[in-house]
Amino acid sequence: MSLLIIGTVAFDEIETPFARTGKILGGAATYIGLAASRLIKDIKLVSVVGGDFPKKYIELFQKNNVDTSGLKIIGEGKTFFWSGRYHMDMNTRDTLVTDLNVLADFDPVLPEGYRNSRYVMLGNLTPSIQRKVIEQLEVRPKLICMDTMNFWMDTTWDDLLEVITMVDILAINDAEARQLSGEYSLVKAAEKIRKMGPKYLIVKKGEHGALLFYEDQVFFAPAMPLEEVFDPTGAGDTFAGGFMGYIAKKDDTSFETMKNALIYGSALASFTVEKFGTERLLEVSDKNIQDRLLDFVKLVSFNM
Amino acid sequence: MSLLIIGTVAFDEIETPFARTGKILGGAATYIGLAASRLIKDIKLVSVVGGDFPKKYIELFQKNNVDTSGLKIIGEGKTFFWSGRYHMDMNTRDTLVTDLNVLADFDPVLPEGYRNSRYVMLGNLTPSIQRKVIEQLEVRPKLICMDTMNFWMDTTWDDLLEVITMVDILAINDAEARQLSGEYSLVKAAEKIRKMGPKYLIVKKGEHGALLFYEDQVFFAPAMPLEEVFDPTGAGDTFAGGFMGYIAKKDDTSFETMKNALIYGSALASFTVEKFGTERLLEVSDKNIQDRLLDFVKLVSFNM
Repeated sequence: MSLLIIGTVAFDEIETPFARTGKILGGAATYIGLAASRLIKDIKLVSVVGGDFPKKYIELFQKNNVDTSGLKIIGEGKTFFWSGRYHMDMNTRDTLVTDLNVLADFDPVLPEGYRNSRYVMLGNLTPSIQRKVIEQLEVRPKLICMDTMNFWMDTTWDDLLEVITMVDILAINDAEARQLSGEYSLVKAAEKIRKMGPKYLIVKKGEHGALLFYEDQVFFAPAMPLEEVFDPTGAGDTFAGGFMGYIAKKDDTSFETMKNALIYGSALASFTVEKFGTERLLEVSDKNIQDRLLDFVKLVSFNM
Repeated sequence: MSLLIIGTVAFDEIETPFARTGKILGGAATYIGLAASRLIKDIKLVSVVGGDFPKKYIELFQKNNVDTSGLKIIGEGKTFFWSGRYHMDMNTRDTLVTDLNVLADFDPVLPEGYRNSRYVMLGNLTPSIQRKVIEQLEVRPKLICMDTMNFWMDTTWDDLLEVITMVDILAINDAEARQLSGEYSLVKAAEKIRKMGPKYLIVKKGEHGALLFYEDQVFFAPAMPLEEVFDPTGAGDTFAGGFMGYIAKKDDTSFETMKNALIYGSALASFTVEKFGTERLLEVSDKNIQDRLLDFVKLVSFNM
């Protein structure tokens, strides 16, 4: 089934204690789209880039089943640029530069063929832009999943709460779930947030895995303990892309399918962090993914 | 099978943002013993208390299958006292008071009947005292598990490394594993630590669960997401006691049994934090435990 993705397409410049990149392809929608492309062929991208965005990246999207007719190119503008430096723990980072550029005035317009998408992933972005995408849909999708971040809680609280009422799943990290709900306990946070609108809450805990809350149920997807985390950039978006890609492929929104989708997302994310940017995600084979999924099964299986 | 436990028996005074206790029963060996007593009847305690230690607590141990003939009572001395205050997150705490009292000169002597124990749990304590216990054993136990903490890495490094060579399992938290190995990646840390002696490494991550490393295998036991953590004191020791109790009960040291043992330990620990001190652990029914174990199965089960 079709997956509509809105989010940033960016240039990233990443520094870790061990290495640094030049300008490389980044952005939430990039990781979401390329992750979902491991599973489905009908992926529709909504984003904006500047005239400096290389044709080879657009071709990369297209080669990976990502429809770019919703990718607006503003010839005289520059592509969104983010630069960050990771600390020794590879878990915390400082943002060095955030140049919004063409993203500052982004007003998304969905191409005709996008408006009946069955699955929608709203990458982290200004809440009002996320809302405009939902409002242009002609049919209510089977599932809308939304990412957001603390910045929008600090600056556009009312807009954020409005969009949250329109989605089925909110996927945020543990600190954000605590900030949004005012509760330290994630169980209590989930209860409060689900009353704000979304039926499901995903709490991303990075190297500590992810929780999915639904009604009185909770599922935990572990993160794979890795020998080395080379670059954590894009792990959360890869996770979201794998999650929604899996659900769209199965065309099933049951809790059972969502569990598998979380494991699939975690597996893909565990590859993304093994190299800079999208490099590992793009080269990994289906066999690699199947083996990693088996590792996840082994990681948590017990027989009491 | 028999489980020998060495560790502190203490008075604790605990303050959380929501409540505080007076002097209550605490100490690593207390939690380990009472947790193991949910599973086995042959538990031998080695510790020391002062003349101020109430008879009712000794009776409590005995009623719960904990043999106290190895609990030395120094009539003119005072029992070890610890006082701490938890922060709002209930995860970090300040130690307010540590009065070693009778613990300062503790020189453990194992009663005759203790010296052929098949399973041994060395609670967090001065490494040289842990070593003295091992040296008094007449037969090499089937399994020795050791807890320790950063304090001993800072103050008695050589002693610590010596004891580590004598045990089968080291059970420490993630920060301690990183400090001990000098590696941030827990996979690399496990590899280094296992080269120091123990065949198995358990990394306790508190609310984020626990990892068990063995050869090239890794198992992850989640922590149960809880509505409320009332008092985290003793959770790690309850976990260790449940873990070793389960293994002693099965009298089996296979990796498969250890996985179940970790889940059992996690389940017991999830009760301990629901009330102050040992209160909840002592009142919880077998039915409660079975239900919680089922919750753990549900928490991580998926069928891809």
